[in-house]
Amino acid sequence: MREDEITAWFAEQRKLSPEDFPIGIGDDMAEVRLAGEESVLITTDMLLDGVHFDLSKVTLREAAYKAMAVNLSDCAAMATVPVAAVVCVALPKGFGFEELKEIHKGILQASDKYDCALVGGDITVWRDREPFVISIAMISRCAGVKPVKRSGAKVGDVICVTGFLGGADLGRHLKFEPRIKEARFLAESFVINSMIDLSDGLSCDLNRICQQSKVGALIEANAIPISADAKKKKEPLASALNDGEDFELLFTLSEDEFSKLLNGWNQPVAVTRIGAITDSGKMQIKKAAGEIENLVPGGYDHLERDCKGKDDDGL
Amino acid sequence: MREDEITAWFAEQRKLSPEDFPIGIGDDMAEVRLAGEESVLITTDMLLDGVHFDLSKVTLREAAYKAMAVNLSDCAAMATVPVAAVVCVALPKGFGFEELKEIHKGILQASDKYDCALVGGDITVWRDREPFVISIAMISRCAGVKPVKRSGAKVGDVICVTGFLGGADLGRHLKFEPRIKEARFLAESFVINSMIDLSDGLSCDLNRICQQSKVGALIEANAIPISADAKKKKEPLASALNDGEDFELLFTLSEDEFSKLLNGWNQPVAVTRIGAITDSGKMQIKKAAGEIENLVPGGYDHLERDCKGKDDDGL
Repeated sequence: MREDEITAWFAEQRKLSPEDFPIGIGDDMAEVRLAGEESVLITTDMLLDGVHFDLSKVTLREAAYKAMAVNLSDCAAMATVPVAAVVCVALPKGFGFEELKEIHKGILQASDKYDCALVGGDITVWRDREPFVISIAMISRCAGVKPVKRSGAKVGDVICVTGFLGGADLGRHLKFEPRIKEARFLAESFVINSMIDLSDGLSCDLNRICQQSKVGALIEANAIPISADAKKKKEPLASALNDGEDFELLFTLSEDEFSKLLNGWNQPVAVTRIGAITDSGKMQIKKAAGEIENLVPGGYDHLERDCKGKDDDGL
Repeated sequence: MREDEITAWFAEQRKLSPEDFPIGIGDDMAEVRLAGEESVLITTDMLLDGVHFDLSKVTLREAAYKAMAVNLSDCAAMATVPVAAVVCVALPKGFGFEELKEIHKGILQASDKYDCALVGGDITVWRDREPFVISIAMISRCAGVKPVKRSGAKVGDVICVTGFLGGADLGRHLKFEPRIKEARFLAESFVINSMIDLSDGLSCDLNRICQQSKVGALIEANAIPISADAKKKKEPLASALNDGEDFELLFTLSEDEFSKLLNGWNQPVAVTRIGAITDSGKMQIKKAAGEIENLVPGGYDHLERDCKGKDDDGL
């Protein structure tokens, strides 16, 4: 069973009232209405030594930065403003204050830069040398811009991504910059119909937009911005489609809004048009030679832990 | 280094603006101001197999219920109303949908009862058979009552606890009822100066109130409501003082308010007066024979993992 099916199953078990929870299970963050018009958004991510990083190769500081950054990236995906984070760590026996200070440095590196206060947490210690775990929950606010959901893509929308994709596993996954500023600029300046952050690979995350918006998509292989890291790999296109952990923004908007974006984009990060939302009901890719093939949602599935389709060029 | 010293160190590193964060690191929950008068509170707790429960003896459902309940108990400690929770789990390889459904049942058992919606989460899988981890973050709201802090105890206050203490490790730690309703009734009906939930043992959690309120305390050994479970143990009083995981409320209020409480308490759970807040600057206990001794903050320290003082009757 894949992660998205399980997420859908969880969402089915209890129907949340849309008045109290305008956005429930299944988007990058949930939105919780408090009193009146005010609402708060919340997300959480847990990172494990040996799965999301390898402490024999990276520092605790880098691991903690990544844990903050993946949560910040969820705030970016909704075009919200991060406010506060709480951090849980499980420490292998023998870890002490020195290790906690390193973890704290990594947290502050992200929290200072993105103005997201560390407000609490929980420190636990394993009985023995079980691996380090860090889990963060983050809340954000709308600040004048409605949260951008995965479910708003419309047939005819232009599909765009920020930055360059693939090969994040070569090191970028530890030091990426969450696209908070870019997402805010996008949502404040243009009508963005849907958005997600690329955590599990373009093919996987575009599929989430398609599924939740009940649309299809056609992307062009030639248009996909392949990172320098992905170009070092055996199959750069498959890498850009499926590697995951790019933490760039994937978003859709109308042709009109895209024209405005072409003129109005003033951020240093590149934005690339990679395709269009269709009514085909499926994801397709136009290969370099011009033929159109179905695009299989590949990418990293935390529950199946395989990269489906990698054997056939990721497609 | 003990848990409270590390918490204090973390709080020192970045001073949070009291306008934006009326309650910061070091209480049961942090309070985050959004816009205008509205605020939200947040807490988090991580539970580890082999530390907080033992999956060779308890079910996943019980473990998940406990994970929700300890967070709900933090909401109770501040007299706030739980609103929503996000849940992270790290699953040993081989765990699948059946195990997730059991975890989900445990979560719902708590979330349905205390009206705290499950709104999101993160599922990760270990590479191998590393132990199960569950980490929950919960947000709550004030709903007309100001959050009750640890730092408001005043010299002369009566010290009270709900329920019966000690021996939760014999099983109660898995199925306790967070005192949400009782805490709301207390804070709505009386002026409660300080409150905490008993997670790490009376002597440890009373010390937190004393430290944060800059006061001392004198409790009476004869007055402490010792649970039936604690009475099965070799040293029932030490057990009630230090075992931890009672998840009862410890609170202080003036003599006048306590008189009102004596007449107005209408909840099925017992409330017991166990002592008074003093200006001695230290914690003391009046033993059964009448002599007054210093009370050492014992209880379970997650970083030192020892029960200080257990060797000498917990005192």
